[in-house]
Amino acid sequence: MVFSASLNLHPMFSLLPRSSLCTPNKLSLAFPQNYSNNNRNWSSISRRAYYTTTSSLLSEKFPKVGAQSTGPIAPAELIEVVKSAAQTGAQVVMDAVNKPRNITYKGLTDLVTETDKMSEAAILEVVKKNFKDHLILGEEGGIIGDSASDYLWCIDPLDGTTNFAHGYPSFAVSIGVLYRGSPAAASVVEFVGGPMCWNTRIFSATAGGGAFCNGQRIQVSATDQVERSLLVTGFGYDHDDAWSTNIELFKEFTDVSRGVRRLGAAAVDMCHVALGIVEAYWEYRLKPWDMAAGVLMVEEAGGRVTRMDGGQFCVFDRSVLVSNGVIHSKLLERIGPATEKLVSKGIDFSLWYKPEGYRADL
Amino acid sequence: MVFSASLNLHPMFSLLPRSSLCTPNKLSLAFPQNYSNNNRNWSSISRRAYYTTTSSLLSEKFPKVGAQSTGPIAPAELIEVVKSAAQTGAQVVMDAVNKPRNITYKGLTDLVTETDKMSEAAILEVVKKNFKDHLILGEEGGIIGDSASDYLWCIDPLDGTTNFAHGYPSFAVSIGVLYRGSPAAASVVEFVGGPMCWNTRIFSATAGGGAFCNGQRIQVSATDQVERSLLVTGFGYDHDDAWSTNIELFKEFTDVSRGVRRLGAAAVDMCHVALGIVEAYWEYRLKPWDMAAGVLMVEEAGGRVTRMDGGQFCVFDRSVLVSNGVIHSKLLERIGPATEKLVSKGIDFSLWYKPEGYRADL
Repeated sequence: MVFSASLNLHPMFSLLPRSSLCTPNKLSLAFPQNYSNNNRNWSSISRRAYYTTTSSLLSEKFPKVGAQSTGPIAPAELIEVVKSAAQTGAQVVMDAVNKPRNITYKGLTDLVTETDKMSEAAILEVVKKNFKDHLILGEEGGIIGDSASDYLWCIDPLDGTTNFAHGYPSFAVSIGVLYRGSPAAASVVEFVGGPMCWNTRIFSATAGGGAFCNGQRIQVSATDQVERSLLVTGFGYDHDDAWSTNIELFKEFTDVSRGVRRLGAAAVDMCHVALGIVEAYWEYRLKPWDMAAGVLMVEEAGGRVTRMDGGQFCVFDRSVLVSNGVIHSKLLERIGPATEKLVSKGIDFSLWYKPEGYRADL
Repeated sequence: MVFSASLNLHPMFSLLPRSSLCTPNKLSLAFPQNYSNNNRNWSSISRRAYYTTTSSLLSEKFPKVGAQSTGPIAPAELIEVVKSAAQTGAQVVMDAVNKPRNITYKGLTDLVTETDKMSEAAILEVVKKNFKDHLILGEEGGIIGDSASDYLWCIDPLDGTTNFAHGYPSFAVSIGVLYRGSPAAASVVEFVGGPMCWNTRIFSATAGGGAFCNGQRIQVSATDQVERSLLVTGFGYDHDDAWSTNIELFKEFTDVSRGVRRLGAAAVDMCHVALGIVEAYWEYRLKPWDMAAGVLMVEEAGGRVTRMDGGQFCVFDRSVLVSNGVIHSKLLERIGPATEKLVSKGIDFSLWYKPEGYRADL
């Protein structure tokens, strides 16, 4: 299914001291260019040994961001409602895909469509019918519901509105449900193809239960070298210092990797990491509804999630880096210092928003 | 089908002197930010008048790059073989999409696959069976055939090999046929969707006969403002001054437009301009097989094609800018001077390659 490169994990990963995460400049680990074939002939046993060691080190370095459990609601019950809600929103979007629509503007390039609003309304109906007392944070409608609830639904009824407005794939409906502040269940319906061949695929994940696409289990790629990686990033509407920094990162990684894609929908990009077709994605200034579903998808597909300074991520944060895990440290060698520099300049990286009164075990 | 913005063409276009193309710095036409709704209420008659005037001026400013005709072979006969050849190559690619393959490397990120070679072989068989004496320039096999022929087939058996290797949409089979040096017929089969939902759509065009996708006539968007445009560009494998210049252009246009996409397959990006889902695409350092089909598709869909310095384009050139036409001058205000600066630095922009002895009326 996925054309991942052979599993040639480099021993360098197992030699990285934990402290390397926070002190990247002290290590001379700038993307090695010439060890690409060194490990091609490892036996499968030594590969497994390295992989196990690497996974274990990854867990230690980059703690999981998903919830411990789905709480009192069983995973199967919760994910069914999440998927049903996402598909209901997606039906609204699909109905609109092939007909002209009235479009309004929010800022210069932030396009919001009637479809956005109709999709959110349709999703809310499903949520409220099933879980009357849950708290809901919608991209369009803001916060509604009971802040005493342990469950917070983060809903993006149309992620990638610019693409949607242009008929450019991809865009998505994205729903992530937090349990006490951490992602517990997620579903993303991605619109693919474009004019003459629109189609959708549905991603889903529950904390500890794995990630799936169209019902099939998915996993991140095993590519362990940045120079063999395909990456993806995004640039927000606010063209501040963080935006400029990410243009620089785009340039640097375009230089050293197989390429940096720029597709335009955060939830989609993260699902692509989970699907194993790109190795990593990062972006500053996303909102909880952009990230809640995608980060769980990546983690449940075997990847890792941190802030862009390498710190422990939560969905209220203002930066995110998701990867297949094995290249996470190497990416942070460049992304980390760039982000820390922004922090030192006083750029606000405090938690973006957490609904007042909502209990989060963060 | 396509969610193009309303046709609010600005009178500024009809006021542009022809000389503005070559003297962008003399005009203070930096992307106007504040006239977006000025012309919403024009009568349909005045819109038509402006549109006619604009089209006429565009033809004068940016001469067509397509051939005058398909020569002694009738358009219907030629395009049938071109489409058949592209579909034959695409079948090879589709067979390979869902199974693991052996991958070889060319340079650091230039991935070439067995599929690439098998696709080209399958395409050549179709061409040779129908037109024994035609000249062929294949991305894999170089030049073969009779250089006395007026017809030159430019074949990319797998455009977007990096995407293909990762299972990342999109990639394509691209075939453009030149008649005496200019594109006369073209077909592109695009692979869309990705894992769990691969699909294809086929684009085709003949000189003077229009552009089609899956049999339906297509046309470029009518968006006349850069700040309402979705753009796309590419970065080649050679990280020279032209590469750095285009990173700068990427930054500048990301700043002023709705976004610059980076998808990774030139033929696909140009077909997306023809389809009206993005407004423009540009790239340095492409080869004839990357461009021959795409430029005809854009032109036959109502768009325009020039070099990135604004000069008359031919498929042997080392830069290309394709657009919906109406924003072409505005894009050149920034892209033109940046390219001229490269020329003044001595960067080679001479014709890349023209098969020895091949007659081209350029």
